[in-house]
Amino acid sequence: MIHLSVDGMGGDNAPKEICQGVMKALHEYKNIKITIFGNEKLMNPYLEKNERLDIFHCEDYLAMDEKDVLKKYKENKELSMFKAMSFVKEGKADAFVSAGPTQAIILGGHFIIKRMKYMKRVAIAPIIPSYDGRGRFMLDGGANTELKPEHLEDFALFASIVAEKIYNRKNPKVAMINIGTEKNKGRDLEKNTIKLLEMNPNINFYGNIEPKEMFTSDADIFLTDGFTGNIVMKTMEGSIKGMGMVLKREIYSKLSSKLGAVLIKKAMKSTKKALDASEIGGAIIMGFEKIVIKAHGSSDAHAFKNALRQAKEMNELSILSIVEKNMRSIKEQ
Amino acid sequence: MIHLSVDGMGGDNAPKEICQGVMKALHEYKNIKITIFGNEKLMNPYLEKNERLDIFHCEDYLAMDEKDVLKKYKENKELSMFKAMSFVKEGKADAFVSAGPTQAIILGGHFIIKRMKYMKRVAIAPIIPSYDGRGRFMLDGGANTELKPEHLEDFALFASIVAEKIYNRKNPKVAMINIGTEKNKGRDLEKNTIKLLEMNPNINFYGNIEPKEMFTSDADIFLTDGFTGNIVMKTMEGSIKGMGMVLKREIYSKLSSKLGAVLIKKAMKSTKKALDASEIGGAIIMGFEKIVIKAHGSSDAHAFKNALRQAKEMNELSILSIVEKNMRSIKEQ
Repeated sequence: MIHLSVDGMGGDNAPKEICQGVMKALHEYKNIKITIFGNEKLMNPYLEKNERLDIFHCEDYLAMDEKDVLKKYKENKELSMFKAMSFVKEGKADAFVSAGPTQAIILGGHFIIKRMKYMKRVAIAPIIPSYDGRGRFMLDGGANTELKPEHLEDFALFASIVAEKIYNRKNPKVAMINIGTEKNKGRDLEKNTIKLLEMNPNINFYGNIEPKEMFTSDADIFLTDGFTGNIVMKTMEGSIKGMGMVLKREIYSKLSSKLGAVLIKKAMKSTKKALDASEIGGAIIMGFEKIVIKAHGSSDAHAFKNALRQAKEMNELSILSIVEKNMRSIKEQ
Repeated sequence: MIHLSVDGMGGDNAPKEICQGVMKALHEYKNIKITIFGNEKLMNPYLEKNERLDIFHCEDYLAMDEKDVLKKYKENKELSMFKAMSFVKEGKADAFVSAGPTQAIILGGHFIIKRMKYMKRVAIAPIIPSYDGRGRFMLDGGANTELKPEHLEDFALFASIVAEKIYNRKNPKVAMINIGTEKNKGRDLEKNTIKLLEMNPNINFYGNIEPKEMFTSDADIFLTDGFTGNIVMKTMEGSIKGMGMVLKREIYSKLSSKLGAVLIKKAMKSTKKALDASEIGGAIIMGFEKIVIKAHGSSDAHAFKNALRQAKEMNELSILSIVEKNMRSIKEQ
């Protein structure tokens, strides 16, 4: 039985969608058990009785727009997110899943769960939508604003193992996000990282990729620092939303195209779904001692269930011990 | 009479669309004169006789995919782009316009035209599409992979003057591209640049902006280093293209939505146009002693005409001397 620890109060649609996602996962996956942390009164209306579900009442929780997470953490370790993390740290559960604020998960992860021995940094690895729908990782999506080439090399190795084991990508291709495809492009960070990637026999380096090609690329992993990765994610989000807004405005400005809108409604909906990576799962936080999955802040029950499924698969396939074994054999050579 | 110097051979659709853009501009703007540099035999079919047009034959030109521009420059200064630049440098024309490779324009600018006295770096300032259609600058779009806070401060000042004089933005708002809106977000570059911007009485600092808001923001200028700026541009390009691809696939997968597609054809076209910033003009290269406009590589005649109009307006409004006067009074305080 895989035991997942869930922050019931994290996410824009918490606790409702989180609780409903938990119920969906319990129905669908018979080999999991969930302990959900949060305000019982607020969560109970959305939870059903289930012998594989435990509720752990926490009076307080972290606001989604909390600006000073560090202060909150120091003041109150009883917040639902931190309680759920401690539960995992203490070995009472196998993985932590939350749709709460990213920075809080990163901070709590460092203070409570701790980093893996061989990882000097952790990375957020969100799934990026793609034309073929299979999804690729990008990392770091925003855990660190500044990184060194050796950190990126560690991330590439970690992500390669996940891509191979969970997503069945044989010899997964790692691409460096850059401003040009030639090797001499980019900052020192890119140039020096490329050298490390090319020399590493455990990494299949694909070359540089410009972000205009990410959507159709056949690479499996996109590598960059957390500042750039976060900018890429937010630019994607803004561009897709912006294009949708303009298209709507242009369509509704004429009667004939308004009629057309009715006919393409389903296509619009499936386009939106295809561009929504949370269909595939949450972001894996790579580098902690335990499995940590960050579901998208705006997760609905379906998206949260997918994040739970991801945590379950990470556990089933023993991803962390494979990574650790690999890292150890490389680092102690 | 404003005299523009044009590289007739630069651009994916050169010389045809470039020559046709030149003719359009000559017909529309009676106060300009153009000298076009390039292969006469290839350009002549698209040029008409005009007393305000001079053709300067150059046997050679730079390939759009030239990888080693520096080597090319050293070997052959007779290439059409460099000849057109020298023409401006020698005072024979007022501005240089090209749809050729960006890196070649930046390199030629440094070697032939030279930087303005008070600018330690130059910036590419493309226009970014927006929901309200008025367009904003982003800089640096890719001239420098690494920049210091004081360089970004210079760019902000330069862009503010252009936005105010050419685009009639009163007291233009400068936003810092960042991974969060709080002041303490970002790398040292962002944090230190924000301090300079806040202290500068000639800059109206708007705050941080996340790229997901760029499309709808009411800021006038988006500031970032050339690596990040280039990544933002290319992510926008890829996301918009990607969403278009998915939408098309989804629409054409069903008969009913195929019918809808016919009805929304015009709306799709106008959406594409609204998202195409080359409607508004090319990218201004800010920081050279002379006006340098880089039209989009894929410019058609209409887009190239808009870039020529931009060069004309920069000259009419004496932008460079205003910038220089401002810079001098600040730097020599």
